[in-house]
Amino acid sequence: MSENMLHGGIDAGGTTFKCGLADASGALVASHRVPVTTPEETLAATADWFTAHIEPGTLKTFGIASFGPIDVDPRSASYGTITGSAKSGWSGTNLRAHFENALALPVTLDTDVNGALLAEMTLGAAMGCASAAYVTVGTGIGAGLFANGGFLGRPSHPEFGHIALRRHPGDGNFESVCPFHEDCLEGLASVRAIRARAGSPEDLPANHPVWDIAADYLAQAARALTLTLRPERIVLGGGLMLAPHLISRIRKAFDEQMGGYLEHAPSAELITTPGLGDNAGLIGAILLGQQGTQ
Amino acid sequence: MSENMLHGGIDAGGTTFKCGLADASGALVASHRVPVTTPEETLAATADWFTAHIEPGTLKTFGIASFGPIDVDPRSASYGTITGSAKSGWSGTNLRAHFENALALPVTLDTDVNGALLAEMTLGAAMGCASAAYVTVGTGIGAGLFANGGFLGRPSHPEFGHIALRRHPGDGNFESVCPFHEDCLEGLASVRAIRARAGSPEDLPANHPVWDIAADYLAQAARALTLTLRPERIVLGGGLMLAPHLISRIRKAFDEQMGGYLEHAPSAELITTPGLGDNAGLIGAILLGQQGTQ
Repeated sequence: MSENMLHGGIDAGGTTFKCGLADASGALVASHRVPVTTPEETLAATADWFTAHIEPGTLKTFGIASFGPIDVDPRSASYGTITGSAKSGWSGTNLRAHFENALALPVTLDTDVNGALLAEMTLGAAMGCASAAYVTVGTGIGAGLFANGGFLGRPSHPEFGHIALRRHPGDGNFESVCPFHEDCLEGLASVRAIRARAGSPEDLPANHPVWDIAADYLAQAARALTLTLRPERIVLGGGLMLAPHLISRIRKAFDEQMGGYLEHAPSAELITTPGLGDNAGLIGAILLGQQGTQ
Repeated sequence: MSENMLHGGIDAGGTTFKCGLADASGALVASHRVPVTTPEETLAATADWFTAHIEPGTLKTFGIASFGPIDVDPRSASYGTITGSAKSGWSGTNLRAHFENALALPVTLDTDVNGALLAEMTLGAAMGCASAAYVTVGTGIGAGLFANGGFLGRPSHPEFGHIALRRHPGDGNFESVCPFHEDCLEGLASVRAIRARAGSPEDLPANHPVWDIAADYLAQAARALTLTLRPERIVLGGGLMLAPHLISRIRKAFDEQMGGYLEHAPSAELITTPGLGDNAGLIGAILLGQQGTQ
């Protein structure tokens, strides 16, 4: 009976797998967090939780929003497989195949940021927008982008964290934390990069000079998105954005950088924090499953 | 009779309006160049040429690929109007309305780079691609982008020339030629910027150091496009790309900058010069008209 049907999903992050089950109305009826260790341990513990919480025959859809790089092409034989070596030991793990086997139903998978973007466009800060971007500013930096009715970067996905940035005048000597790029967004403005300069972001006072550096770089990112895609909304999420003073600094730096060149929506409307907070990824994973492969 | 029907178009550049008429097979049967002066003079001379070359009732479609910024939204009351002040005296000129009146048929209008991109995707260097970018590197720098079945940046268009770039180590003191941005692609790598450093690009020997600076900046642009959109092809056109040694330098700089982070098509396939050369804009304008407003 449809009122008993469940929609499952995993927000598969690099340190935690957040698991959830929603009912037909979309309300979350159960959730659970699995710490990430080895692929074998993590996947087994995750599948065990789902099988323990689902009556046979009641799971209707299942979606995964995962860290990457990951194969997100439904036409690919390795659809759902972590690629590259961004996270040690996980390269080659096929998340989709594992959960299709464990749960005996088709699984839809996309990037964590595409999941969060879908959730924000469906229920959150980008609701009603025809085009939008979700940028996560955490240990790494990545973006999900949507325009013309679908995610961008297909059949792959963006790797927006690695665009080149102009150095902040007060940051000329900082050594990028990205092992690949001395000049990229992730190497200069991720939580790891802030930590390398000044310690844990949670402990930094609002008047620490590193915040203006971070705001300058994240404004350059918002500027690049605006000048390339003209999205209706840019949602900035992830751990660094938990600093409540950061978003207004980014908007100010964005306006200064744009220099009045372009008519655009006021930056307070254009650039915003998530409406769904920390839950965007899990809600997005469940929504990905409900949408299915398109 | 359909074999006598003509398809017209204008590649409306900042210094020249290239006018053309194609037959039903797509072959160009007449073309003409009008130098750009005042809007009144330029538009009158252009319309006069078309009316003198068209038998009554034989013009079937008409398209314009124009310099910008320009309103490209068919649902807008000012669709086809030059906006902003990029070209003195032209702000507020409605190209679409003028030629709809002069030629008595609907006119489809888009940016010059979207026109060139459409031509390259239909008949040129990006034929068969599902996603592609066309970047013009001329007096200014702009890009047309296509993914998910349509141009990106809708209902407006990209302003990609104004993204921020990391300075080349040998270019730290150069003053950007962009009046809005001290750090943007157009301000650092357009023909105007090259000329401000070293004189006319046509006269520069291949071993002049400014070419490596230009290659570095254009590689950063290709890198930004790749990491944001993952286009199947990036076509680099415009006056600066007429230097035959430049494209291979850009590919080399791109590979160095990417640092092996991402699996991507070989840069010699990914980044290329136009297949249609100088004609892409005019062919694109005619194709825009044939496609109509979508």
